[in-house]
Amino acid sequence: MPAGRGVTVALDGFGAERGFGVLAEGARLAAADGIRLRVFGPPRELGLDGVDGVEVIPTSEWVGNEDDPVPAVRAVKEVSVVRAARDVAAGRAGAMASPGSTGATMAAATFGLRRLRGVQRPALAVRLPVPGKPVLFLDAGANVEVRAQHLVQFAFLGAAFSEAVLGVERPRVGLLSVGEEAGKGREETVAAHALLSEAGGIEFSGNVEGSDLPAGAADVVVTDGFTGNVALKLMEGTARTVTAAIRDAARSNPLAALGGLLMRPALGGLRRELHPDTTGGAILLGLRSIAVVGHGSSGAEGIANAVRLAARCAEVDAAGRTAALLREGGVTRGSLAAGRRDGVDA
Amino acid sequence: MPAGRGVTVALDGFGAERGFGVLAEGARLAAADGIRLRVFGPPRELGLDGVDGVEVIPTSEWVGNEDDPVPAVRAVKEVSVVRAARDVAAGRAGAMASPGSTGATMAAATFGLRRLRGVQRPALAVRLPVPGKPVLFLDAGANVEVRAQHLVQFAFLGAAFSEAVLGVERPRVGLLSVGEEAGKGREETVAAHALLSEAGGIEFSGNVEGSDLPAGAADVVVTDGFTGNVALKLMEGTARTVTAAIRDAARSNPLAALGGLLMRPALGGLRRELHPDTTGGAILLGLRSIAVVGHGSSGAEGIANAVRLAARCAEVDAAGRTAALLREGGVTRGSLAAGRRDGVDA
Repeated sequence: MPAGRGVTVALDGFGAERGFGVLAEGARLAAADGIRLRVFGPPRELGLDGVDGVEVIPTSEWVGNEDDPVPAVRAVKEVSVVRAARDVAAGRAGAMASPGSTGATMAAATFGLRRLRGVQRPALAVRLPVPGKPVLFLDAGANVEVRAQHLVQFAFLGAAFSEAVLGVERPRVGLLSVGEEAGKGREETVAAHALLSEAGGIEFSGNVEGSDLPAGAADVVVTDGFTGNVALKLMEGTARTVTAAIRDAARSNPLAALGGLLMRPALGGLRRELHPDTTGGAILLGLRSIAVVGHGSSGAEGIANAVRLAARCAEVDAAGRTAALLREGGVTRGSLAAGRRDGVDA
Repeated sequence: MPAGRGVTVALDGFGAERGFGVLAEGARLAAADGIRLRVFGPPRELGLDGVDGVEVIPTSEWVGNEDDPVPAVRAVKEVSVVRAARDVAAGRAGAMASPGSTGATMAAATFGLRRLRGVQRPALAVRLPVPGKPVLFLDAGANVEVRAQHLVQFAFLGAAFSEAVLGVERPRVGLLSVGEEAGKGREETVAAHALLSEAGGIEFSGNVEGSDLPAGAADVVVTDGFTGNVALKLMEGTARTVTAAIRDAARSNPLAALGGLLMRPALGGLRRELHPDTTGGAILLGLRSIAVVGHGSSGAEGIANAVRLAARCAEVDAAGRTAALLREGGVTRGSLAAGRRDGVDA
């Protein structure tokens, strides 16, 4: 993925669990690719003075993981993530990235960047680290309860992002459910399946099951934010448990330890693919600009990848292309309200 | 786990994907442990004549995975799984097991065995192959949509099974959600959290997240059947994808291949723990007797383990002890209806 050379990204300078030094190193790495950064944080701690392409806007207030994000973001206009969002809204940056609280970033972005015309619910997308074949998966937790037309919109948001930013031609979109048949699933899943089967503008490939997800059965997989959040954390946890068990096995006796040592170089690529830093974090879709939320525990490379992803989104006008696909598919707020396919007020 | 010596299990003789020979071999292995079996299937194909403790009841009709289970089970009284359930209801066997269609077994058991007094919805439980620390997880797919009091009942069903059959003293029960806080989750999750926090008779340890599940954070974890089915298949799929990627890495060059060879013995235990055959299958809880549904693709050891699990349930009177815990916790149909904690008719 090209790096978004010449684009400006607004970076929240707070919230990196591994400290300001790691955040600053991530900013330096992204700047070295030709991305311009506006960083909202404490200048002295960041130590980014004189780094080419990086401007630090002195900011001392921020929202932590322990704060209730919506009231915190509403109450304090000068917190770093709110200022970053305002920067994008004012056109001084093309996209934003934050290594901090997902809740605070979602709240700041939703208030500051506004929704794309016709979008009812922004959704959080992640690239699942499926070896060799990343899958864009949403909603990873922004909406714990959804209606059928929200799932339909998620399908369009994901397809547009996959095509515009990830470069997948005619991405296949799957709907996560408990069986392949159209009638399997919750009420809203079944209704969304029917709507997606008739929708124009995207390649709907039907229901996918939990077992298909890590097998890369579709380019984009959509679900509600409850199932999505459980699924994402479960995949990460299972991958961690299995690799830890294999590591324990490798340490259980000297021959196995030698075997583990011999396998290590070959396993390096897999470890990189599975590492959270590789994918750059979660992407908030459905707003007039993209917001990327890094893993709080990211290293410098993870922070740089979050910034690169935001820059790439700005460069290809991911939000504008998403809006166009939504119009083409006829799934914007007005058209869904007119259709009233599942009896919901828009 | 002891094998339930002297107990009789009704075994559905159809539906083993790997054929009658594998099913018969599984029956032989279980019979060798001292379990008595009544097998409903074709005598000639099974070839179990003269095996000590095994009686074959000639049966030629069955329900396949491609049949819609509820009408099939209702329409044909002589299908193997219905006859097995009737055998248990008549007291000729203490529990039933089937290697076949989960839907057909659930339908046959629900009609034939009847629900425990006060239970609204039977649930499907599985033992997750968490290395070193199995977790009982339900509902794995019997109820795609649930209300809060169903989740509460699942907690009691799971706790009773964990204590009576798996021998866990005062099992800790977790509720699967998207955050630790009591207010996180769907409407029914939040309501169930409140009910469980006040419930007597079980150890409620609060919400657990997707990442906690493969880490063995609780002895029993409850969720709705949609999330549970997705989660179970996702865990199996992720474990498969990660181990396949490691195997590919081990084959990528001669040194890595030698490493893989040296590690193989140490990995054998892990492979056994993760193998679906080890856990014996899914367990339908909430009926007056236990029904075990094996994996369709089970080998002989998997079939034998499903029978052993059913025998163990009958031996310890899992259903009776479950009923007692439900009464003690005051979460039976009548008491929930009286409380009407979330406005649902019982």
